Amino acid sequence: MFETAEVGHVIDKDAYAAEVPLLRSALLDAQFDLKQARKFATIIVIGGVDGAGKGETVNLLSEWMDPRHIETHAFGVPTDEELARPDKWRFWRALPPRGKIGILFGSWYTEPIVQHAAGDTTEQDFDSQIERINRFERMLADEGVLLLKFWFHLSKKVQKRRLSKLEDNPRTRWRVTEQDWKNFKKYEQFRNVSAKTVRETDMAYAPWIIVEGEDARYRSLTVGKTLVTALRGRIDNPPTKPTALAHTTLRPIDSRNILDTLDLTTRTEKAEYETKLEELQGRLALAVRHPRFRKLSVVAVFEGSDAAGKGGAIRRVTAALDARFYQVVPVAAPTEEERLQPYLWRFWRQLPARGRTVIFDRSWYGRVLVERVEGFCSESDWLRAYSEINDFEEQMHDHQVVVCKFWLQVSKEEQLRRFTERQESEFKRFKITDEDWRNREKWDQYIDAICDMVDRTSTEIAPWTLVGAEDKHNARLVVLETLCNRIEGALKKRKGK
Amino acid sequence: MFETAEVGHVIDKDAYAAEVPLLRSALLDAQFDLKQARKFATIIVIGGVDGAGKGETVNLLSEWMDPRHIETHAFGVPTDEELARPDKWRFWRALPPRGKIGILFGSWYTEPIVQHAAGDTTEQDFDSQIERINRFERMLADEGVLLLKFWFHLSKKVQKRRLSKLEDNPRTRWRVTEQDWKNFKKYEQFRNVSAKTVRETDMAYAPWIIVEGEDARYRSLTVGKTLVTALRGRIDNPPTKPTALAHTTLRPIDSRNILDTLDLTTRTEKAEYETKLEELQGRLALAVRHPRFRKLSVVAVFEGSDAAGKGGAIRRVTAALDARFYQVVPVAAPTEEERLQPYLWRFWRQLPARGRTVIFDRSWYGRVLVERVEGFCSESDWLRAYSEINDFEEQMHDHQVVVCKFWLQVSKEEQLRRFTERQESEFKRFKITDEDWRNREKWDQYIDAICDMVDRTSTEIAPWTLVGAEDKHNARLVVLETLCNRIEGALKKRKGK
Repeated sequence: MFETAEVGHVIDKDAYAAEVPLLRSALLDAQFDLKQARKFATIIVIGGVDGAGKGETVNLLSEWMDPRHIETHAFGVPTDEELARPDKWRFWRALPPRGKIGILFGSWYTEPIVQHAAGDTTEQDFDSQIERINRFERMLADEGVLLLKFWFHLSKKVQKRRLSKLEDNPRTRWRVTEQDWKNFKKYEQFRNVSAKTVRETDMAYAPWIIVEGEDARYRSLTVGKTLVTALRGRIDNPPTKPTALAHTTLRPIDSRNILDTLDLTTRTEKAEYETKLEELQGRLALAVRHPRFRKLSVVAVFEGSDAAGKGGAIRRVTAALDARFYQVVPVAAPTEEERLQPYLWRFWRQLPARGRTVIFDRSWYGRVLVERVEGFCSESDWLRAYSEINDFEEQMHDHQVVVCKFWLQVSKEEQLRRFTERQESEFKRFKITDEDWRNREKWDQYIDAICDMVDRTSTEIAPWTLVGAEDKHNARLVVLETLCNRIEGALKKRKGK
Repeated sequence: MFETAEVGHVIDKDAYAAEVPLLRSALLDAQFDLKQARKFATIIVIGGVDGAGKGETVNLLSEWMDPRHIETHAFGVPTDEELARPDKWRFWRALPPRGKIGILFGSWYTEPIVQHAAGDTTEQDFDSQIERINRFERMLADEGVLLLKFWFHLSKKVQKRRLSKLEDNPRTRWRVTEQDWKNFKKYEQFRNVSAKTVRETDMAYAPWIIVEGEDARYRSLTVGKTLVTALRGRIDNPPTKPTALAHTTLRPIDSRNILDTLDLTTRTEKAEYETKLEELQGRLALAVRHPRFRKLSVVAVFEGSDAAGKGGAIRRVTAALDARFYQVVPVAAPTEEERLQPYLWRFWRQLPARGRTVIFDRSWYGRVLVERVEGFCSESDWLRAYSEINDFEEQMHDHQVVVCKFWLQVSKEEQLRRFTERQESEFKRFKITDEDWRNREKWDQYIDAICDMVDRTSTEIAPWTLVGAEDKHNARLVVLETLCNRIEGALKKRKGK
């Protein structure tokens, strides 16, 4: 894997001096086109052994290009805000918007490699981390991100020489830490783990470029030329949207679907409702105030037919929560900043810290519902969304986020009744729009989309709760009870941890 | 001050039951209008003594209104990301956008009051904190924010009873902490400091509403009715922009100004430039890598005539920095999210953490330059910007941010030469736009604006450095030398701290 980066590549001074001006102007040109078109973001991942010129290269790129449109992020010890959220949150918040170049110094590779080389993770743990990285990068690529990963390599002999040399120079001494020498002692382990990592994550859409780090001129030109070639290629030959594999899911041949199994006739009378409501709100209030809840968080997703009563159900939930520790996020059209980012970015930015609850009123499922039905995104985009969403929710689950997803369903007749009622009510008038009527015309297409969604994203860690919402009382009680059960279950699991 | 909130206000159950439905529907109506019009943001500050129903009121407001358009922020111990930036950063990041209601549970009042009651700050410290709060709230009000401050009060006797009662109930026990009892022991000090605070910060544009906290129904109705009255008043009678005091600054009668004093003839020959540049970049590189620099941060502002060479100067600076620890922020039109916030919000969000540098390529001074000259904001808006900007920079300074501001000036003739050169150069062509030519026609108006800006915002803590940029070499050296001197000076000051 790394042999080709131990051959002693060297560029002499004159050749370098002749190449650099052309390279810089080509880089600036490409950067300008990138910025003007805002068609894609570029992410440059910098990894490799210590002393191989990673820092110098990052500086050089900022010097060669227009630093106004480069964002460099170094990932050291996570901040407490980062620790309070799923691992990849810190990388999501550092993603460059379309039109910009993001240089990531340290990345999602750093911890898995360091931990595994130190023997802190099993082979299985490590494999699963690699698998997740591949899925993450696949998603970035599908979102149009140009992803280049540079691995700076040095042979053991050369690394030792480099570290000593950096240490001898007062201007570079600060670059060499005790940790670097500790790492050096484990050179072989690092090399092996890195080799495996590079091998298993080297993809056409996210290639590794191994760079021999010894000669500064060689390594600088290699990085610069690779970058300009990749940028220029992407700008001049924008990739065509992949044609989706034909969406061939067969409707059940008896035309009976999961929503039909919902019993919409359940009714709860007012007196019983009020007793139960108070009881459940009490349970919920206690659960989220439990000392162990500080180690958890809750993400509750509310989706449902128009006029199914999402808002009312949400208010019955929030009434039991402490307003200081929850947020309701209404999901409408993305803002300008959000439109320049991968699809899931705007949901990542809203994730709760530990001890907190976020309620999404509509959610990332918009992609496989309204965007699918209305054709707001391509078929390939919504088809890949299922697994991206599962990955997203899995990461939450792994971080002790209790993910509860509710689909509130009413019958077509009941919806009509509520629409009419809303239109006639001075007070609820604003709740009904032309769009609601248009959506209603596509009832059957939505049913298809909902069934596919439940099929593909109701997982053991983040199950869908289908709620018969024909009777509002019943719907609210089901929602509250589910939340109580899920949170209490999670609290029990953490007991003794 | 608090006597009227110790009279034992009570609302009986029936009166409450009769009022609440009307109040809720009026609140929902007002909230809907607020959201639709997006004309202003509403901030509700919640303060007062412990056990007086602050938390319950926050919950109730979220329950009464549509929780999707309310953002509640509780301020406890600052996170490390917050500690790394000026004190008010955490409040800026919590400001609600126009159209939303932000409830701040704990606020900029909490620390000053707690510290002063504990005897940790002098009378002078406290007065200066109060003064800053007034300036901050004045700015919010000028930005159109509807600001309501509720103070929940209990007499000493009642507070003791309330805390004990909360502690006896398992469902509310968590609300009472050891700190609450510690605070209670200092009831008189708290009362006195709070009374002074309320008195000195009770403004027509940011009124305090003192609420007797004992009776839940009384306090809930009081808060709800106050809120709906304020919202409805603002929605139905939007304030007219204040007419600015006539801008009567007299131009110097000999028509000589500060820019005329700049010597534009200074030239630095290439050989000398290159030697000095290397030397200064070396100094800068060492300064920002100094161990004590981790306690500082740098904000460098670049403003200047079009084509004065800001970009080139910035690149000479960044070349000496470590790309992991700086960011260049190009300031162009605000994004959608930024337009819904007070003017300075988009700059606050970019402030560097300790140990880092942010370079602004154009800045908050746009308000008193292009926005003034082009009439993009009202006269009263840009007139008040001077003192708002001074406050902003003072807060940075107090947090060990080294604020360096550069104005790069070229003569009108040199600008023409550079414009023409740019237009003829295939490579620099994109750097010149019609807007540049239009700005040029307003040369004299810009000179007026620049002189006013320097007059009013060149302070001892954040001085303007006027840079003769007729010769690019000279300009870059002046910029670098100033940065070196300022940072080295700040490092020296911190010695032994």
